[in-house]
Amino acid sequence: MLGHWAQTALERCDRLAACSEVPGQITRTFLSAPMREVHRQVRGWMEHAGMQVRLDAVGNLIGTYPAAIPEAPKLLIGSHLDSVPDAGRYDGVLGVLLGIALVEALAGQRLRFALEVVGFSEEEGVRFGVPFLGSRAFAGNFEEKLLELTDIAGVSVAQAIRDFGLNPAEIAPSEGDYLGYLEFHIEQGPQLEAEGLPLGIVEAIVGQSRLEFEFTGQAAHAGTTPMHLRRDALAGAAQFVLDAERLARETPGLVATVGHMAVKPGAGNVIPGAVHLSLDLRHARDAVRLEALERLGHTARQIAHERGLGVAVAAKLEQPAVPMDAWMQSQLAAAMQELGYPPYKLQSGAGHDAMILAQRMRSAMLFLRSPGGISHNPAEAVLPEDVAAALEVGLRFLERLERSLRG
Amino acid sequence: MLGHWAQTALERCDRLAACSEVPGQITRTFLSAPMREVHRQVRGWMEHAGMQVRLDAVGNLIGTYPAAIPEAPKLLIGSHLDSVPDAGRYDGVLGVLLGIALVEALAGQRLRFALEVVGFSEEEGVRFGVPFLGSRAFAGNFEEKLLELTDIAGVSVAQAIRDFGLNPAEIAPSEGDYLGYLEFHIEQGPQLEAEGLPLGIVEAIVGQSRLEFEFTGQAAHAGTTPMHLRRDALAGAAQFVLDAERLARETPGLVATVGHMAVKPGAGNVIPGAVHLSLDLRHARDAVRLEALERLGHTARQIAHERGLGVAVAAKLEQPAVPMDAWMQSQLAAAMQELGYPPYKLQSGAGHDAMILAQRMRSAMLFLRSPGGISHNPAEAVLPEDVAAALEVGLRFLERLERSLRG
Repeated sequence: MLGHWAQTALERCDRLAACSEVPGQITRTFLSAPMREVHRQVRGWMEHAGMQVRLDAVGNLIGTYPAAIPEAPKLLIGSHLDSVPDAGRYDGVLGVLLGIALVEALAGQRLRFALEVVGFSEEEGVRFGVPFLGSRAFAGNFEEKLLELTDIAGVSVAQAIRDFGLNPAEIAPSEGDYLGYLEFHIEQGPQLEAEGLPLGIVEAIVGQSRLEFEFTGQAAHAGTTPMHLRRDALAGAAQFVLDAERLARETPGLVATVGHMAVKPGAGNVIPGAVHLSLDLRHARDAVRLEALERLGHTARQIAHERGLGVAVAAKLEQPAVPMDAWMQSQLAAAMQELGYPPYKLQSGAGHDAMILAQRMRSAMLFLRSPGGISHNPAEAVLPEDVAAALEVGLRFLERLERSLRG
Repeated sequence: MLGHWAQTALERCDRLAACSEVPGQITRTFLSAPMREVHRQVRGWMEHAGMQVRLDAVGNLIGTYPAAIPEAPKLLIGSHLDSVPDAGRYDGVLGVLLGIALVEALAGQRLRFALEVVGFSEEEGVRFGVPFLGSRAFAGNFEEKLLELTDIAGVSVAQAIRDFGLNPAEIAPSEGDYLGYLEFHIEQGPQLEAEGLPLGIVEAIVGQSRLEFEFTGQAAHAGTTPMHLRRDALAGAAQFVLDAERLARETPGLVATVGHMAVKPGAGNVIPGAVHLSLDLRHARDAVRLEALERLGHTARQIAHERGLGVAVAAKLEQPAVPMDAWMQSQLAAAMQELGYPPYKLQSGAGHDAMILAQRMRSAMLFLRSPGGISHNPAEAVLPEDVAAALEVGLRFLERLERSLRG
């Protein structure tokens, strides 16, 4: 029975994978054109499951399955509908579709709380360099200056919202009494697979810093400028990439990633005059992360000084580590034990909407095993039996919540 | 008098600088849209100077100023009309406009040879990664497989030619009896300025190799993949950039440049799965360059091996050092001495159309001082008095050629 709903959720992931800005891959950034088709399909499934559907001003799609009684509190379930460039098909999307699957599995049964399933419009931070635009707005944590951020084409967040037919002036937190937020998500790492387990309970989400560095030198002719007179921005940037890697390798638990780099002017016969790069730093202990951040800032200035370059640093995200709610973790653990799954606990190395929602309500995450630990990659996968197990635990979690409200 | 024509040439450089693919900068690649406006203006100036103008099948614009006698040989003067991204306004363009200025300075006087002024359509190698498309076709050195190269949008050379309204099947060498090719060009380096000289005669053009490297690793989530399990293509590429820089610094006269780098997928929270980069190597001695090439190929494979990456190398250009014609050099030197300019000789660290033309005819280059040694940069400059000096030497060169044909 749950196997059927699991299969349906996976088929829906396949269908949404076809909604992409880039043919032949999955690339779906905040309020990009293919998001309209995603909304059309998800709205259809929500309505078919008996939900009332609305789109908020930042593009979050929200379906509500009413409670058995009026003025009941709500349990929020969901994840995000955007993707990284050339993504897999489960990151985010699966969590939204498992929310819908749980409602479908209830088969019309009403509970003492409403179920609200949310597909957040933005989590990955690709288009505007700042993540969680969707959940920030939902949780009432959307700073007005975010509207002024611009994408690579110079379009602001406010304009992107208007272009999608929405009104940025109407951005407001979701109202009502929330029991909590539950997010199903693939692990995106190798731990559950190594343990031979289908599911894991997230204890905490690591803290992260995202920064952008701009090294500036002197664009000049590659043939006529002797090596000792060059101010090559790319050589300085390359040194920084290796220094960041070295520090992370030497610091247990720290990960440092330069994922984006743009070289200007970018022709083979011109010495690079400017390089823009991103730095992503994560650690479960904020103090360790902040010390690494300071050291790498110093490293960048040192490189620039030695090479006669300029360097500018902009902080794009500063997110402390976020513990998940203890009571919700205990309910998930009890549900798993009742069903025969070991209640394995782990850290999340990735940021998730749950870290934003945790500022507003009790929040918890259930991870599904990621075969090969692969994510942010077309080879991203999930096992159908793990999806069925997640639904089983989710239903048992709803039953326990129902009992706790009756009791 | 020559000061007037020099001023006109500089004003025309300013006007052509407005023809760009990117507003606010000068970027004009092979047969791009702004090249039409360049052709319209240059054609007008050529016709006004009394030249017959034609556009060949690869987009070279050619103006012919007839000789005093029928079936006379021709002297070719010119350079290229394309640019690097965010270029200066004199690289290439100035050489074409000085050819036109020389015809104008003749004020209708006919010589015993025709003057052919050419604006080559492509020299920089930006759009298709292979330079000299224009002069190769003109000199009868255009290999058919070049037509299959594709640009970043997937458009082939053949298609680009058709899109411009030309027919790639009609590509053929320019016919006729050529006395030689003379190219005026800014030095693009610091040597003449250091010597306090306006002009220099090029003895030889250094040999160059251009290659493209593709490092491939595993795109994966920046937060959940521990450092020791990463196969980060950018970290490998960064190591290669620094190794190439180190080798060039340790090898006298060698220059090595990584000017282009593209990181995929290119999001801040994804470990890079693939990096594409260019390598440009130049040296006046072919043996030194070829040894460096072999060492860097080995270095790339070594890095890939140590990091669990793949690496693919594609040679895009392999150009031996090219000596300029001794007789034409001697004529330029004599003209300069007659006019009181020291006949200073230097190497060209940059590739030029003259190295392609040298395979077909006597070829020579006259360099104009580059203030600050700056080129391939909006700050590229030239002194009006140096432009007038170049015209003076050019006219004297024509007079000497005329006398040698009468004699």
